[in-house]
Amino acid sequence: MGTTTTTISTDQPLTTLVNVFTVAPEAQQSLVDLLVTATEDVMAHRPGFVSANIHASLDGTRVTNYAQWSTEEDFQTMLSDPDAREHFTAVNTIASAEPHLYRVESVHHS
Amino acid sequence: MGTTTTTISTDQPLTTLVNVFTVAPEAQQSLVDLLVTATEDVMAHRPGFVSANIHASLDGTRVTNYAQWSTEEDFQTMLSDPDAREHFTAVNTIASAEPHLYRVESVHHS
Repeated sequence: MGTTTTTISTDQPLTTLVNVFTVAPEAQQSLVDLLVTATEDVMAHRPGFVSANIHASLDGTRVTNYAQWSTEEDFQTMLSDPDAREHFTAVNTIASAEPHLYRVESVHHS
Repeated sequence: MGTTTTTISTDQPLTTLVNVFTVAPEAQQSLVDLLVTATEDVMAHRPGFVSANIHASLDGTRVTNYAQWSTEEDFQTMLSDPDAREHFTAVNTIASAEPHLYRVESVHHS
């Protein structure tokens, strides 16, 4: 993988999803793989999808999906998509999710 | 605020902090303000700081700091800084934090 760039627009606010999954360390890699597949097969092709970054915690107990959507409505529409729900069912067998939607309040750089 | 750009390097991995704060909705804006001040006054000037993006949940109950540091050691050094600890004390009076450190596993764009 190379260096990639994420644009966070604060003029035309995006809706940000931060979804923190709690998982057993031995299932962390399987969860990452499931989320990558779900993103590539379904979410990335749905209207309003902007980006998703999938993270594995160094302590092994969490996986976090940081994603941006054009609007909250686009995100909610994806949630009820049957193909997406199939992936959620698989994820829920090995992890518990805590999703929240956000607006970006401030951005700081070194 | 304008459009800003965050670079996520996957060649030379950064350490990503995702810190989800739980807060009463009436204290959400105060928490955002505290975190912005702490970032501008302390964190942004510490060695290894790359970026911090502060988010307010649409449901009012969460504030999430998504930050990147050059190395885990730089982040740990900042944690024990007396100026940083003063800010943490103020934050802890109105919110509970759940911080985890991560590596970026995958990046997807529309």
